[in-house]
Amino acid sequence: MREQYLSKLFNPESIAVIGASKKPEKVGYAIVKNLLECGYPGKIYPINPREEQILGLRCYKTVSELLSSKEKGDPVGIDLAVIAIPASRVLEAVKECAGNNINLVIVITAGFKETGPEGLELEKKLTAFCHEHKIRLLGPNCVGVLHTHTPINASFSRGFPQKGHISFISQSGAMLVSIIDWSKTAGLGFSHFVSLGNKADLNEIDFLEYSGWDPTTRVILCYLEEIADGPKFLETASRISTRKPIIVLKAGSSPAGARAATSHTGALAGSDSAYNAAFKQSAVLRAENMEELFDMAFAFANQPLPQGNRIAVVTNSGGPGILTTDCIEKMGLHMARFTAETSQQLRTFLPPEASIYNPVDVLADAPAERYRFALEKALSDPQVDGVIVLLCPTATTDPREIAHSILEIRKELPEKPLLSVFIGGKEIQEAQNILREGRIPCYTFPERAVAAMAGMVRYYRNSAALREKTELLKKTAKKAQREPEPHCPVYNTAQVKATFYDALRERRVVLLGHEGIKVLSAFKIPVAPIKLAKDAEEAARIAEEVGFPVVLKIASPKILHKTDIGGVVVGLENGREVKRHFEEIMHRVQRFVPDAPFYGIEVQKMMPAGMEIIIGSSYDIQFGHLLAFGLGGIYVNLFQDFSLRLTQNLEESDIDEMIKETKAYRLLRGFRGSNPLDIQSLKDTLLKAAHLVTTFPEIRELDINPLLVYEKGVCAVDVKITLSHNLVDDVHPVGEREEQLIEQFAERRS
Amino acid sequence: MREQYLSKLFNPESIAVIGASKKPEKVGYAIVKNLLECGYPGKIYPINPREEQILGLRCYKTVSELLSSKEKGDPVGIDLAVIAIPASRVLEAVKECAGNNINLVIVITAGFKETGPEGLELEKKLTAFCHEHKIRLLGPNCVGVLHTHTPINASFSRGFPQKGHISFISQSGAMLVSIIDWSKTAGLGFSHFVSLGNKADLNEIDFLEYSGWDPTTRVILCYLEEIADGPKFLETASRISTRKPIIVLKAGSSPAGARAATSHTGALAGSDSAYNAAFKQSAVLRAENMEELFDMAFAFANQPLPQGNRIAVVTNSGGPGILTTDCIEKMGLHMARFTAETSQQLRTFLPPEASIYNPVDVLADAPAERYRFALEKALSDPQVDGVIVLLCPTATTDPREIAHSILEIRKELPEKPLLSVFIGGKEIQEAQNILREGRIPCYTFPERAVAAMAGMVRYYRNSAALREKTELLKKTAKKAQREPEPHCPVYNTAQVKATFYDALRERRVVLLGHEGIKVLSAFKIPVAPIKLAKDAEEAARIAEEVGFPVVLKIASPKILHKTDIGGVVVGLENGREVKRHFEEIMHRVQRFVPDAPFYGIEVQKMMPAGMEIIIGSSYDIQFGHLLAFGLGGIYVNLFQDFSLRLTQNLEESDIDEMIKETKAYRLLRGFRGSNPLDIQSLKDTLLKAAHLVTTFPEIRELDINPLLVYEKGVCAVDVKITLSHNLVDDVHPVGEREEQLIEQFAERRS
Repeated sequence: MREQYLSKLFNPESIAVIGASKKPEKVGYAIVKNLLECGYPGKIYPINPREEQILGLRCYKTVSELLSSKEKGDPVGIDLAVIAIPASRVLEAVKECAGNNINLVIVITAGFKETGPEGLELEKKLTAFCHEHKIRLLGPNCVGVLHTHTPINASFSRGFPQKGHISFISQSGAMLVSIIDWSKTAGLGFSHFVSLGNKADLNEIDFLEYSGWDPTTRVILCYLEEIADGPKFLETASRISTRKPIIVLKAGSSPAGARAATSHTGALAGSDSAYNAAFKQSAVLRAENMEELFDMAFAFANQPLPQGNRIAVVTNSGGPGILTTDCIEKMGLHMARFTAETSQQLRTFLPPEASIYNPVDVLADAPAERYRFALEKALSDPQVDGVIVLLCPTATTDPREIAHSILEIRKELPEKPLLSVFIGGKEIQEAQNILREGRIPCYTFPERAVAAMAGMVRYYRNSAALREKTELLKKTAKKAQREPEPHCPVYNTAQVKATFYDALRERRVVLLGHEGIKVLSAFKIPVAPIKLAKDAEEAARIAEEVGFPVVLKIASPKILHKTDIGGVVVGLENGREVKRHFEEIMHRVQRFVPDAPFYGIEVQKMMPAGMEIIIGSSYDIQFGHLLAFGLGGIYVNLFQDFSLRLTQNLEESDIDEMIKETKAYRLLRGFRGSNPLDIQSLKDTLLKAAHLVTTFPEIRELDINPLLVYEKGVCAVDVKITLSHNLVDDVHPVGEREEQLIEQFAERRS
Repeated sequence: MREQYLSKLFNPESIAVIGASKKPEKVGYAIVKNLLECGYPGKIYPINPREEQILGLRCYKTVSELLSSKEKGDPVGIDLAVIAIPASRVLEAVKECAGNNINLVIVITAGFKETGPEGLELEKKLTAFCHEHKIRLLGPNCVGVLHTHTPINASFSRGFPQKGHISFISQSGAMLVSIIDWSKTAGLGFSHFVSLGNKADLNEIDFLEYSGWDPTTRVILCYLEEIADGPKFLETASRISTRKPIIVLKAGSSPAGARAATSHTGALAGSDSAYNAAFKQSAVLRAENMEELFDMAFAFANQPLPQGNRIAVVTNSGGPGILTTDCIEKMGLHMARFTAETSQQLRTFLPPEASIYNPVDVLADAPAERYRFALEKALSDPQVDGVIVLLCPTATTDPREIAHSILEIRKELPEKPLLSVFIGGKEIQEAQNILREGRIPCYTFPERAVAAMAGMVRYYRNSAALREKTELLKKTAKKAQREPEPHCPVYNTAQVKATFYDALRERRVVLLGHEGIKVLSAFKIPVAPIKLAKDAEEAARIAEEVGFPVVLKIASPKILHKTDIGGVVVGLENGREVKRHFEEIMHRVQRFVPDAPFYGIEVQKMMPAGMEIIIGSSYDIQFGHLLAFGLGGIYVNLFQDFSLRLTQNLEESDIDEMIKETKAYRLLRGFRGSNPLDIQSLKDTLLKAAHLVTTFPEIRELDINPLLVYEKGVCAVDVKITLSHNLVDDVHPVGEREEQLIEQFAERRS
């Protein structure tokens, strides 16, 4: 297998421990000890100017001394330096590494960015140096790395995990140490652990790449507080998750949690809904909490994926069987219906009081062979995608025997996932160990097993859909190379630029209603015609042009609640009415808000009633533009019925999905006897809105509300477009600088 | 303390074990052994005609022999008989007990109702005999009972639980055995365990009463598949839960689970929403799953209740602190804001890099005294209602020391709940034991502690509200005794009876629209006037009477979709139009559905638009009538925005609550600038609807849809009322029997 650029971090031939120590309370002692105890097969070189020997190893004063005094058989260079000396001296040590051709370092030392401005300055210098000298750096402020297959423990963790196939990338060092400790009790094995620390250079994306490559890793776990580069994460995770499951526990999902995370890492995190959209679009599983993260890890690392959501349950006790059934239904799985053949075979072999339907109750006195038979039938049934086996240690149960027969049947029928739940303590401990050693995940309570199974089903589906999308994209790309797309809509970007220019010249970042509509129609989105009138005569003329009835709306960026001051009049049927109401609105505006800048009054054709939909977009600092779709009207805020996606890599299949996951979809399809509405036009509009914001990333917010959806066609009635504040300079008065900015902008977009 | 009627079951002076055995594989052996091993202080008398001695105890041939051969110092009678002999001989044994004045028996033996019709017959005979001879019976088909304070283990469980203050009433014997085993590993102590078995006589209500009385029990856990007597459960649980928390895990919450439960217990369970309403109204906490049941038990048994939902978190690691914050917000709790004083004290004592805001991060190197200080400040802050303390075993952490200092601070400041989360395995095991022995619940993952804290907050609030309601009811009752209620609305029940009678005489259980409206108006619910017209002339006359505009609706119990056949015409403005459309509807009906029985055409006044609300009621076989409230229109089915309560003990405060827990409430209060609507009239209508169905329990379904709510007043436009099918006999043709039934009904209601 080809080498990966981080292979040397997990499998170096030689390691220099800079700051190695003889004092057991020192981190530099723990690292050398961990390297020795884990059985690391490479060379370990402690570096400490004040010691001769550390833990039986010869100690060198400096890296230079080490390299000049190499012994016979020693490797030519040093693959990795682990640094654990005070923060103030770290840069110096890294410089020495650079001077000796060491281009991979782990900085364990804390006292950088996380401590305040001084530390931040120190970290910036360190990062800049590494960048300049092409040194890859993990940390600072991290616990280190471990790999159980090398084996290597280049960290100051307590203890070393069991060998296994799970990788864990953690932004929290303490959590990593805790989990190593916990995993040994829980019987969970790992391939490798990474403590990310401050992510000055290497970050989660590098380690996703490594875990994706690492042949010993089957499932990738991440604990993250923020993501360094949203778009790159989406690209990388999408590529890897079609092959290996990635499960992320993202902290800061609540507003209070996000505040706590920001104060902890000092990093700006994007909105939680943007993370959710990113995970959805890259088939990354998001764990709800720590317990779920590891429950899923157990199952993914040891069991095949279910090909569907039909689950069978085999139990020796009714109660837990029913509770498992409840969980299965609640978590979106289904209780499998056995084929007639399975039911009949169960009926023939099981005692008459046993339940032969799903959940199969093999009764409290079930011996191992009865379990074995029921499991064999359940696993062989073509209408079953996965099996959960439950056991309560009743007076006549032999949990060990049953555990063995579960392992046997697993070997005979290895295709479908099989999870076990043994409820108890001492009485089932041995059985639990037998199962875990035989790679059957064993949980204590049913809901944990069901959550894990549900995660597997979700991943199976999402990754399959993503693979399909990726294939399709490749084909389309190839086809596009051969023949240019003939039907690609031609957008009038010049009109958009001109509209933005007009607003910016007036130092407005919020467009007026008719300007927004102009932008939409430049992107071929059907709109209700609207124009700005400066006087009553012009208003009447426009009304004739757009067609009656019309609505008049005061146009002023400073008047937000137009209705409150009587700035909106609807249902005008002729020119006379238009003129009269124009004057009346003017009168009211002059009376109530004499200071508001006045642009005129907008005249818009009134559209027939339709279903009200909202299409929106907002800009996330981490992931770029998000596209939103949801039910309009007063119900928007009441029911929060909307779906979100990142515009990055957005395809028609995503748009399809985002419509279908709202309740509004049921109304669109035709609800309780009404005719179905024009979903195709709605999809087109969503795609065009996505194109608009990706073509013009300076759009910070877009809010089409409402978009009316008809049986045939759609129509945007109102839209609010907000541009980036960076485009105008709010602090300085209008002057040279602003003109310059606007010129630059106009130039850039032309 | 006065004796409770089940005291003898848990603390008998003497026990006869009928079916005691020498063979270790027999249940009759396990029971005697368990009684001996647990240290039961009373007398144990094995009964077996074929043995002389069992486990060192003298064995008697029969109960009669035992009682006639009593030795000096023996108790006069036998308090309890535990029966473990084949099902066919159980009745005989119980008869012998009766003959010897034993009036308390546990039948361990299986093979009764759960096995089919024969077993059911056997069980019926057994129950009838016990009832007749005033013998209280636990079982059959149960594991038995245990009490750790007596101590007594009259069961065939494996092992005996640790002494504690939790009682567990379980409808699943296997689960009970599993939990005894599990609890020892988990460090959870119990007061007593009851296995309910088939509940032929004693059921969950008896044991709720006992646990409520039992001074050693602080928290009551139940695992239930169905409830024997809904109304009695509500009454009993409401009474007890104001003093002691009751936590119920109810199996069969999903439709598939309910089916599995029914096939398991053979009992008819009510709907899950009725259970939810019952639990809510009796301040019973419903656990989502097994894990939550025991997580809450840990906290309730050992910690004081929080007086609010403001939670502080103290941690030595940022990541878990943020995750805990996320959970706190998600589960409806709040992160406490410290007082300025607390913050300042934390700032003074903690290192500068520590976070002094909530979550308080005492840093990875925190020694015990730093934890102690932070906990002291958090627990003393008047703006904190409860504290969660987290620990990760980092390299420099001493978990044992920290555990001890947590216990110390707990002793000094015992008023607020304090839960701990120590994440790890071997490294924290000792600390975990120290905490548990010191009665500080210790969880492995943060979400478990937060779920437990959230449960405590919920119980604190619900039980307080229930106490308040109970006090109010008592006062009202006393007042009513002194002076009869002057404002009690006088309902025209005669009109309701007459309307029902008319329908039943025609063998209809679904009332026509105008009949339903007549019933509502008899209960003073404001309605849109409606009358039945037989011909066009009459229709025009009625229209004049109710006022224009009017709507015409075909009245026929067989035509469900009136609009589809043109059976509804709206917005008629004068008599001429009414007459014309009357004839046209008649024409269409005769053409499309010539066979439908024709009652006439209903003429109803059209009401101005208002907010559409649904008020409904349905009958649950377990709990009686439920009252439903929710948003009307097409959004009913789309968003499922409704609340439910049992009509039993329903008070104005419940109705208040049920309105507030819907999203419709936000619309009613005045949403986005619209005026608030008449919530008082809405409440009155809900109360009247509840009165209607409790006065006439034969109403199976009531569906007021829509009820229009205005700024002033409400108006019921459409209502569907369905009566019990038992009132008419669908199988037989109209004849003597039906006449008789209707007569009976009329008599009963007059």
